[in-house]
Amino acid sequence: MYVLYDFLPSGNGYKVRLTLKHLQLPYSLVEKDILKGETRTEEFLRLNANGRIPLLQLENGECLAESNAILMYLAEGTPLLPTERIEKARVLQWLFFEQYSHEPNIAVVRFWMTHGGPTDQQKELLPAKRKAGYEALDVMENRLKTNPFLVGDRFTIADIALYAYTHVAHEGGFDLNDYPGIQAWLKKIANLDHHSHITDR
Amino acid sequence: MYVLYDFLPSGNGYKVRLTLKHLQLPYSLVEKDILKGETRTEEFLRLNANGRIPLLQLENGECLAESNAILMYLAEGTPLLPTERIEKARVLQWLFFEQYSHEPNIAVVRFWMTHGGPTDQQKELLPAKRKAGYEALDVMENRLKTNPFLVGDRFTIADIALYAYTHVAHEGGFDLNDYPGIQAWLKKIANLDHHSHITDR
Repeated sequence: MYVLYDFLPSGNGYKVRLTLKHLQLPYSLVEKDILKGETRTEEFLRLNANGRIPLLQLENGECLAESNAILMYLAEGTPLLPTERIEKARVLQWLFFEQYSHEPNIAVVRFWMTHGGPTDQQKELLPAKRKAGYEALDVMENRLKTNPFLVGDRFTIADIALYAYTHVAHEGGFDLNDYPGIQAWLKKIANLDHHSHITDR
Repeated sequence: MYVLYDFLPSGNGYKVRLTLKHLQLPYSLVEKDILKGETRTEEFLRLNANGRIPLLQLENGECLAESNAILMYLAEGTPLLPTERIEKARVLQWLFFEQYSHEPNIAVVRFWMTHGGPTDQQKELLPAKRKAGYEALDVMENRLKTNPFLVGDRFTIADIALYAYTHVAHEGGFDLNDYPGIQAWLKKIANLDHHSHITDR
């Protein structure tokens, strides 16, 4: 059985939990509180030198880090990942977009807002982060205003990865009113079988 | 034949050019100067709504964005990407690490330093970026001090992706003297057949 090292409020961890849920794969959860430095202990760094959750431990003891790499690993050979070469690359395009253009803005601002911030330095950075966050939402809307899902016409791990922080974007002060495509897509995903809440185990 | 939209000083673009070179794939290059806003024109945004290079156009006209998604697309079925499931996931782990923990620190600081910065705001951010950049180098050194390459024992696109901005890290003021594993690895890659320089077409 898989062991998942995770922090329940994390959207990056949620992606993995939601994928495991959709694939109906059993796993045991080991909670690590990142706010208490529990992923920076010597013991944890031996499992992941980069000191971050989520971390998936396979049956043979090997560990895999990086939420979206874990998603790709779990989804291979399942309906959550297309097999056609360009479609699979398109899923990856959205996964890298998520980690580079979406998460560092939308998730980071949400983290500030829900953890006692923004501090003075964060306040200075906020306008640029806010702008870049809305630009990321624009890119998603451009696709979702005319398509049901991010890749092809079916639900994939690209949708799971982008859903994670988009559905809680309002907690960071992002207003989705001007994004009808994104809103319809969020609703569609929340209504899928096996859907679960961000802090569900 | 592939068309590559690219900006020659970009390390993200270089990854793609270096991969094409290693695979001996012909392509035509269309240069877009990001400093002049050439990737934010209406015409370019129709090709990539996210307005960034590198962008790979396939023979059928379809476009693929995100440097590391392009690397995965090109490398599939070649010696640059393992076929074994966990090894392939391990390559992806490094590719996501590169875009999340390495590029935003090491490449961004290099960009500031080589483009008239740091400005006053950049100066404030510099200590945190510098620290996070060295942490990323620590993670690489942890692997490379005892292994010849990042995944398994052979050269893959994980090495290409991390080589791109690591080999020019000194241009951002990063000192690699305490990283003998990284230094040996950089040298090994620079000596491979088909290697090319960052601004080579």
